[in-house]
Amino acid sequence: MPELRHDPIQKRWVIIATERGRRPSDFLVHSEKPPTSFCPFCAGNEDKTPPEIWAIRPNGTKPNTAGWEVRVVANKFPALMIEGDLDRRGVGIYDQMNGVGAHEVVIEGPAHDTDLSDQPVEHLAKVFKGYRERLADLEHDLRFRYVLIFKNYGLTAGASLSHPHTQLIATPITPRTVAIELDSAREHYAIKERCLFCDIINQELEQDKRVVSTEEGYLVMTPFASRFPFELLVTPIEHHHDFGQLSDADLSHLAIAMKRTLSRLKRALNDPPYNFIIHTSPNMLARGRRPGHWQTLPYDYHWHIEIIPRLTRMAGFEWGTGFYINPTPPEDAARYLREIEAPA
Amino acid sequence: MPELRHDPIQKRWVIIATERGRRPSDFLVHSEKPPTSFCPFCAGNEDKTPPEIWAIRPNGTKPNTAGWEVRVVANKFPALMIEGDLDRRGVGIYDQMNGVGAHEVVIEGPAHDTDLSDQPVEHLAKVFKGYRERLADLEHDLRFRYVLIFKNYGLTAGASLSHPHTQLIATPITPRTVAIELDSAREHYAIKERCLFCDIINQELEQDKRVVSTEEGYLVMTPFASRFPFELLVTPIEHHHDFGQLSDADLSHLAIAMKRTLSRLKRALNDPPYNFIIHTSPNMLARGRRPGHWQTLPYDYHWHIEIIPRLTRMAGFEWGTGFYINPTPPEDAARYLREIEAPA
Repeated sequence: MPELRHDPIQKRWVIIATERGRRPSDFLVHSEKPPTSFCPFCAGNEDKTPPEIWAIRPNGTKPNTAGWEVRVVANKFPALMIEGDLDRRGVGIYDQMNGVGAHEVVIEGPAHDTDLSDQPVEHLAKVFKGYRERLADLEHDLRFRYVLIFKNYGLTAGASLSHPHTQLIATPITPRTVAIELDSAREHYAIKERCLFCDIINQELEQDKRVVSTEEGYLVMTPFASRFPFELLVTPIEHHHDFGQLSDADLSHLAIAMKRTLSRLKRALNDPPYNFIIHTSPNMLARGRRPGHWQTLPYDYHWHIEIIPRLTRMAGFEWGTGFYINPTPPEDAARYLREIEAPA
Repeated sequence: MPELRHDPIQKRWVIIATERGRRPSDFLVHSEKPPTSFCPFCAGNEDKTPPEIWAIRPNGTKPNTAGWEVRVVANKFPALMIEGDLDRRGVGIYDQMNGVGAHEVVIEGPAHDTDLSDQPVEHLAKVFKGYRERLADLEHDLRFRYVLIFKNYGLTAGASLSHPHTQLIATPITPRTVAIELDSAREHYAIKERCLFCDIINQELEQDKRVVSTEEGYLVMTPFASRFPFELLVTPIEHHHDFGQLSDADLSHLAIAMKRTLSRLKRALNDPPYNFIIHTSPNMLARGRRPGHWQTLPYDYHWHIEIIPRLTRMAGFEWGTGFYINPTPPEDAARYLREIEAPA
């Protein structure tokens, strides 16, 4: 069973894999792994993954056979285990709990080489529907405080399998970055009775210096204090706190915004590796069940997607300090991206 | 002039380089840079760097000529500029200030290929003396709240020049990671009137599960909630908050501890790229000059060095969430490292 351990200095939880610990010799090969010919995510290989949790099968084909458009399975090498009790405990000055959680993979399509940005908009909407359905379902498990949805694209961005896929990790804690965002939004609301994100969105639309585009009710922008070159934020312009409560129409509109944005990035930066992370509100069903945990109200958060192209190498310094040096002003990045023609 | 911008959601300052902004085409070459034959840090090339700020010259040679053992110069491409006013200002909901600060390079020796871990202990002590002297001097500039001292070793760790060197960045703000550590230590002291770090050190020495070694009054250990495989903490066992106030004897002892630790890492992990970051107390001279900034007292902090070998690729996800998955339990890492014989 993996462990969740709390750092009392940095106030941050870390997952420690205890079962399959990597030894020094596991790290000695620094070169890129050669691509293997076999892919467990390709159509026809459904029996090589854990059983299907959810899928879109327009022709009513059987689970774990070909014929699917989007397919969700458990991660074969999960960071957290679905079964067991949290068993929260102290060890002297430290705190830890069992690594209980869920780790799933959304396989974005049957084809091995069709990246998200190359899919038709209708297909993107189906992938996002997979995110929404799994998020909503996982939140019924009251052990889970938060569901992280993120995509690693390219080896440099951490993708160990090249077949297009997204990951979901349900955690029994709220990740620190989300906790800080919640704090900020809550403090802002307490004083002003307005959403912090809504205020930022309004100012950005008015200033129009970092707006890349507005599409179908979504704002695509480079953040004022971008940490990385061409970092992007995609957010609904109208207030909305929970990705899990989006309508099918919302998802279709998001599909248009994301398709255009990912295509722009690909064209501007020659198909860069990237990560995207969906920041949504913590699990509302689990709220208030433990004192001291996040008790989110709808105006406390405003969901958004963070896209980080992986263009610069600097990392250890930033990891150690939380301090970033960005060589590309976000106003320049927004201007470059605006000039790239995006497909409809 | 670079800008410091504050992210109101993440409560974090970022340096935005405004003068020499990198365009999309600057990122298109992803391959490793070929090593150039000319090195401005090598002995004999002193006129190719900005003028010397500090040096150890045992034979009394002239500044900016050969004959030095350790040499400090301004960074030729500084992230922050030494001249100017901070000019703190708000832009609607955002906050920014001029990128005023210092960015210096400690050239660790005249030889191009002699890594810190290959230097004799006496030489390491001289390098650390360079850190201490520059730290103490920069803290007399009351614009500077914090002095970051960090080393990138290897291209993967962000070293753009291979000649052994360390960087100092003096900033007009306290980096968020340090601010969180100060908060934790202060809260702990407020309740217990004991130093948080001292409590951790005592527990680690007693449990003896994550101790790599104790050397000359320093503890070398893998943190309980390590984010990365073989992450290390080097800290004085006795309470001490400020690297800038270390005695020459303290530095000589640290040199022994660091030489043995870096050699162990090199042997265990086949000369891995790494970052180390010195976490020391904020500028005590500048304290209290602005309300709301850190007013550090000696028991609020306990200086330490964080060493992060760069073995895993996962990063964007961690950047986006503050959530880490570590595939090597720190107890295993400590055991592997203990088994490596360290040079005297």
